[in-house]
Amino acid sequence: MSNFPPKLLNGYQNFMSGRYSDERDRYRVLADTGQKPHTLLIACCDSRAAPETIFDCGPGELFVVRNVANMVPPYEPDSQFHATSAALEYAVQVLKIRDIVVMGHGRCGGIQAALDPAMEPLSPGDFIGRWMSLVRPAAEQIQSNDLMTQSERQTALERVSIRNSIANLQTFPFVKSGDDEEGVSIHGAWFDISTGELWVMNEKGDFVRPDLEEQPFQAESASA
Amino acid sequence: MSNFPPKLLNGYQNFMSGRYSDERDRYRVLADTGQKPHTLLIACCDSRAAPETIFDCGPGELFVVRNVANMVPPYEPDSQFHATSAALEYAVQVLKIRDIVVMGHGRCGGIQAALDPAMEPLSPGDFIGRWMSLVRPAAEQIQSNDLMTQSERQTALERVSIRNSIANLQTFPFVKSGDDEEGVSIHGAWFDISTGELWVMNEKGDFVRPDLEEQPFQAESASA
Amino acid sequence: MSNFPPKLLNGYQNFMSGRYSDERDRYRVLADTGQKPHTLLIACCDSRAAPETIFDCGPGELFVVRNVANMVPPYEPDSQFHATSAALEYAVQVLKIRDIVVMGHGRCGGIQAALDPAMEPLSPGDFIGRWMSLVRPAAEQIQSNDLMTQSERQTALERVSIRNSIANLQTFPFVKSGDDEEGVSIHGAWFDISTGELWVMNEKGDFVRPDLEEQPFQAESASA
Amino acid sequence: MSNFPPKLLNGYQNFMSGRYSDERDRYRVLADTGQKPHTLLIACCDSRAAPETIFDCGPGELFVVRNVANMVPPYEPDSQFHATSAALEYAVQVLKIRDIVVMGHGRCGGIQAALDPAMEPLSPGDFIGRWMSLVRPAAEQIQSNDLMTQSERQTALERVSIRNSIANLQTFPFVKSGDDEEGVSIHGAWFDISTGELWVMNEKGDFVRPDLEEQPFQAESASA
Repeated sequence: MSNFPPKLLNGYQNFMSGRYSDERDRYRVLADTGQKPHTLLIACCDSRAAPETIFDCGPGELFVVRNVANMVPPYEPDSQFHATSAALEYAVQVLKIRDIVVMGHGRCGGIQAALDPAMEPLSPGDFIGRWMSLVRPAAEQIQSNDLMTQSERQTALERVSIRNSIANLQTFPFVKSGDDEEGVSIHGAWFDISTGELWVMNEKGDFVRPDLEEQPFQAESASA
Repeated sequence: MSNFPPKLLNGYQNFMSGRYSDERDRYRVLADTGQKPHTLLIACCDSRAAPETIFDCGPGELFVVRNVANMVPPYEPDSQFHATSAALEYAVQVLKIRDIVVMGHGRCGGIQAALDPAMEPLSPGDFIGRWMSLVRPAAEQIQSNDLMTQSERQTALERVSIRNSIANLQTFPFVKSGDDEEGVSIHGAWFDISTGELWVMNEKGDFVRPDLEEQPFQAESASA
Repeated sequence: MSNFPPKLLNGYQNFMSGRYSDERDRYRVLADTGQKPHTLLIACCDSRAAPETIFDCGPGELFVVRNVANMVPPYEPDSQFHATSAALEYAVQVLKIRDIVVMGHGRCGGIQAALDPAMEPLSPGDFIGRWMSLVRPAAEQIQSNDLMTQSERQTALERVSIRNSIANLQTFPFVKSGDDEEGVSIHGAWFDISTGELWVMNEKGDFVRPDLEEQPFQAESASA
Repeated sequence: MSNFPPKLLNGYQNFMSGRYSDERDRYRVLADTGQKPHTLLIACCDSRAAPETIFDCGPGELFVVRNVANMVPPYEPDSQFHATSAALEYAVQVLKIRDIVVMGHGRCGGIQAALDPAMEPLSPGDFIGRWMSLVRPAAEQIQSNDLMTQSERQTALERVSIRNSIANLQTFPFVKSGDDEEGVSIHGAWFDISTGELWVMNEKGDFVRPDLEEQPFQAESASA
């Protein structure tokens, strides 16, 4: 047990004198009345794809699950610990969140691992190997395409995996689609780390650049 | 499958014109050379406790696992999908991260559920029930203490659970303590949503306010 | 034989009173001294992807081959008529063009036809069927991937086909790579009709958004 | 494989900030609903005779084949790759285009090559030699006429070749003349690079200056 990382303490001081200072009341209210996040966001652990940053969200907005490669396993009501399923259950059943976003991103290390058939287990437990086996059939099919570049195969699997997770989400009995009060809307998104571009999934499952409102890109509108 | 939430698209536009615009080069370099995050941060899904916000971290700094109540299960090398163990394995074995922080927070819904013996399963799968069973023995012992208020019991279990996760972390064979190159430093932290206070765990396991460097905390901005 | 289409005559009048009027001298010089185009551009017949429009090029700049799906067949020195090979020979051997661009585009009808195994011949000659057989092996491999959406398969084949044409270009003995006077540089590009985005091929064969110089997007800077 | 030509990237930026910016909606609609070009235009690769420029056409208007000397080979239903026949088939059978224009132009390098009996093959494959053999009988007859100047012989063959291509067009079974729904109208045109004059073929096969509507040729009526 060593000293707390100084970088984090410095960052925390910045938070206190900056953002917290500006949003003190918001934090107080959120503490007193509880959270009512508008969206469940299932994202990757990757340090370059933090959802609060990409969507410029403040405290209280996003309920966030982060695991390697932003995956949702299928519904498996057994006796195991299911981190992702537990978070999903809490978001939908307790917090009554009605928008769920699965957000993948480019250059995902988990997806890269899934596409490497020669990869050795990282430890005797082979946790990454087992976790990424959630997309193994898809990975094998895509890996066999030798006409696409490695980068194209990676992007393809990143997107197939998002659709796969969305299909898995729909196997949970309490995730009901529909426009009524119980109905949950599920969305897919893919973030390009290199260019900052966000791609969203349309009704056909394709990822397209969203229509953003025209707005003057002024330096002073920076929010972060 | 419905339209992508407008709130998120608006936030993304703010990101692009603001933070991304300022950090374009950093994103490009991070995309080209890969991530080298300094810290693995295990945090809660709670919308009020985003690690990048609290530690004022930019892209590339934190590899983040988020599950309900920021828990680490014990080492279980079986055939199941283990989201948290997989992320831990990737962080330590591939990214060579040497600082791990388990950050809990006040008013945690998962901990609250663990302290409610009358709580019904949220769905037939009872995912939250099973997930929170990771701290059941501790929860039962604390719940039986009728001298503490409910709020004190909640804070107590939040902190016990952090120590529990840290003990579980140490059951993973590849998580070796020590000051050599392989050695991993494990830290605990607890964030008070209401006041913005960060408490860090000391070598005895106690949570204390860290010594922050002196800096001109002007009367009107002082918070702690 | 009917009257010349009035739409074209009207357009021609616009050209004469507008662009030609502005560039009269340039046309005269080009007529007197001959063309010295800087680039051979192999593009699709598609009405939405005219190279002179997309690259804002004036008279004398681009030597343009346009066929269905912007394809280059492999080197076949036989007795047949080879429209594309003839244009390539003329561009490199007579005009001494040293930059060759193969530009594909989204939603290409030829590529769509290649991906439709049930497509009937369009006429007894089956010219499109035979022409698109240049990418048949690639089309079959990509078509068999049932995890990708139809749109993703289409984009994938559009890009594979560009790389295929570039490989075919390199089978022509007079197309020599290298930095000397004889050396030809071959480039790939893909145009997204829907968004206007241009993607260029990098040294790995991947298509990426080019780094464009920052410039103020002012209405009055319009050039066309 | 070298860097993408900067001239083209600069031109693309002009397109994006200018013409694309003005016609964004048109491109979107064309992407969504598909192209419905009114004319198939068979033109030369020559950099001085871009059809979209000469006819001031925007995206979606012209389906364009470009080969050396804007030629159409005769109908040959064999097993070879026929770039021009494939484009013709697609234009008439799929896009249902009913106006076809064969546009030649002055100072055509391909025609010049056809008129040079001493010309050596440009490469062992002799692709231009074989391609221009489509007009060899006509070229030999015109070349033998020593009363015409070289320039007159060139213009004469440029026009003969247009009529030759039109005759070849009519050998395709799916190119049916007539005023009914299936009927295709075929037109000839010849563009004078030096003066900007357009000549159109009349019902006798002669090339004449078209009657343009009287309109004030004012500087400010420029459209481009």
